[in-house]
Amino acid sequence: MGRVFNFSAGPSVLPEEVLKIAGNEMMDWHGSGMSVMEMSHRSKWYDGIIKQAEADLRDLMDIPSNYKVLFLQGGAYTQFAMVPMNLMKKGKADYVNTGAWSKKAISEARKFGKVNVIASSEDSSFTYIPELDPETFSKDADYFHITTNNTIYGTRYTKLPETGKVPLVADMSSNILSEKYDVSKFGLIYAGAQKNMGPAGVVVVIIREDLVTDTQPEIPTMLKYKIHVESQSLYNTPPCYSVYICGLVYQWLKKMGGVSAIQKVNQEKAAILYDFLDSSSMFKGTVAKKDRSLMNIPFITGDKDLDAQFIQEAAAKGFVNLKGHRSVGGMRASIYNAMPVEGVQALVSFMKEFEAKNK
Amino acid sequence: MGRVFNFSAGPSVLPEEVLKIAGNEMMDWHGSGMSVMEMSHRSKWYDGIIKQAEADLRDLMDIPSNYKVLFLQGGAYTQFAMVPMNLMKKGKADYVNTGAWSKKAISEARKFGKVNVIASSEDSSFTYIPELDPETFSKDADYFHITTNNTIYGTRYTKLPETGKVPLVADMSSNILSEKYDVSKFGLIYAGAQKNMGPAGVVVVIIREDLVTDTQPEIPTMLKYKIHVESQSLYNTPPCYSVYICGLVYQWLKKMGGVSAIQKVNQEKAAILYDFLDSSSMFKGTVAKKDRSLMNIPFITGDKDLDAQFIQEAAAKGFVNLKGHRSVGGMRASIYNAMPVEGVQALVSFMKEFEAKNK
Repeated sequence: MGRVFNFSAGPSVLPEEVLKIAGNEMMDWHGSGMSVMEMSHRSKWYDGIIKQAEADLRDLMDIPSNYKVLFLQGGAYTQFAMVPMNLMKKGKADYVNTGAWSKKAISEARKFGKVNVIASSEDSSFTYIPELDPETFSKDADYFHITTNNTIYGTRYTKLPETGKVPLVADMSSNILSEKYDVSKFGLIYAGAQKNMGPAGVVVVIIREDLVTDTQPEIPTMLKYKIHVESQSLYNTPPCYSVYICGLVYQWLKKMGGVSAIQKVNQEKAAILYDFLDSSSMFKGTVAKKDRSLMNIPFITGDKDLDAQFIQEAAAKGFVNLKGHRSVGGMRASIYNAMPVEGVQALVSFMKEFEAKNK
Repeated sequence: MGRVFNFSAGPSVLPEEVLKIAGNEMMDWHGSGMSVMEMSHRSKWYDGIIKQAEADLRDLMDIPSNYKVLFLQGGAYTQFAMVPMNLMKKGKADYVNTGAWSKKAISEARKFGKVNVIASSEDSSFTYIPELDPETFSKDADYFHITTNNTIYGTRYTKLPETGKVPLVADMSSNILSEKYDVSKFGLIYAGAQKNMGPAGVVVVIIREDLVTDTQPEIPTMLKYKIHVESQSLYNTPPCYSVYICGLVYQWLKKMGGVSAIQKVNQEKAAILYDFLDSSSMFKGTVAKKDRSLMNIPFITGDKDLDAQFIQEAAAKGFVNLKGHRSVGGMRASIYNAMPVEGVQALVSFMKEFEAKNK
């Protein structure tokens, strides 16, 4: 049936233009006579690729010059450990529990120090972002950790916590580059690439210089930010091809007008689907309106058989990966940067038809 | 100039056939309507890809059923830490120091227990593999670690040490799948993909079941073999696309006749180059003949300016990445599985011409 509309939560849809370039350059990158996969990571070509990717990401996110950018391996999951291993100097951090990924970050951090869970929305199946009262924050914490967008539950922070001198650390895996963030408000941002940036296998870390410090010697070398900062992500062989694809995505995003422009498109896409959910008598959203994600939109019919029928019929029409996460059920449409407006429009048309037929 | 002959030590040449398939499947893998990069790692498609890759690797290496196969991130460098973190139960291991990578493995292991360096070839710039006397091995070591092939220095073990009940652990990054090994002789094998298997960003671990045990709770989750074994490499999002390329390489290798067949080709390729080095009055190998690698062949003219001239003229003719490692100097031709015999023949013809012209 040709290319589908892929609503996968991650790994997820990539811009067609990026895939076309990658396909065309597979046998011979820019006259080098080889694929990017075959290049030494110490070659001048690859140096250009990774440097350009970093420059474009800096440009897109307006990353201040006192922040370092790293391309690492091991996904956000490895960051759950690296953050406390490197940043817990006093042995204490604040975390907000807004879903499965926050919980994993918390449980990993507990191996390395005292974790203060200052708020949680677990009481209501993570369908909202809790109000945060700065009075309850630990003044002497090493950092304060949030998950800016919750892939599974479909919530997002619309306002960042005011943590004062305590560095704000964010897992931004599922909404990096989808909306404007002021990087200077953060001490550290990390994000797996496989949603808004590229293929799985690379995680981006943006870290404020003063947080790059010596660590306990017995920490594995590969888990030390300082090592990777000093060698500009080339301490060991990086995931070269994945970084190259991220670089192509950054260039595509710049051509699209950058983060402000894509944010408007993302708001438009989300509004198309949320407006329909709010007006439908069959489908409804599962999340507090004020905290709705622009990237991951869970919805249900309230009838498990009907959900299953919908998912199956949608897939047959080329709307794939709409099944909700196993812990939530129902449906979820992930509409990352690379999902075109037409994809969401077509999905809503199909949902309308389905509703009419199955009333 | 079209495709070059790429003698890079890693990332390195991949089979043209594999790159062609990957290029053709970039926009739509087997009618799925998406690239492998865009697939959920929980999808039936991706499950098929990673399971097939594992099955083909098992087949190629004749991996016994009491061994687990993992596709992980972080490269061999992360294994330098994972091996001692998971296997050092009594807190003691034997290592052989045969080069830069062995040294890094040793220095990482020292963070986690007592390391006994039972032999070293550092006295002679790692140009040979030391004789190993089992009398000197620690009877109560948790494991015994070797580097089967030394990428930088161009040496390889032609005989495995007899470690008795102590599990033999091997970094096989630069010669996995290039010659027959009896996997049952090892407790654990690890190998970064970027030499004989695929792109950088995935490391293969082959581990005997009895070595997969509970570890100290405070070890980061991502560094525990047991976690990855229990979830069959899908605990977190794996480096999906890199595993897919490895799978295509395994299929290519099976079509070539498997490891025994490629070993013959590798012996033939190495012989072409070594025979010339042994007969040339300008170029000579740097390594003890008995320990010569089939994969990485360092050589020198003895004159730095002539080396530089050779590297430059070779590159202009399409023989690229012949510069030796910065710690050794001179030249190095890495002739992994994917380097065709014709590439080595053409290189030797060029070397002969160069020698005739510059006598």
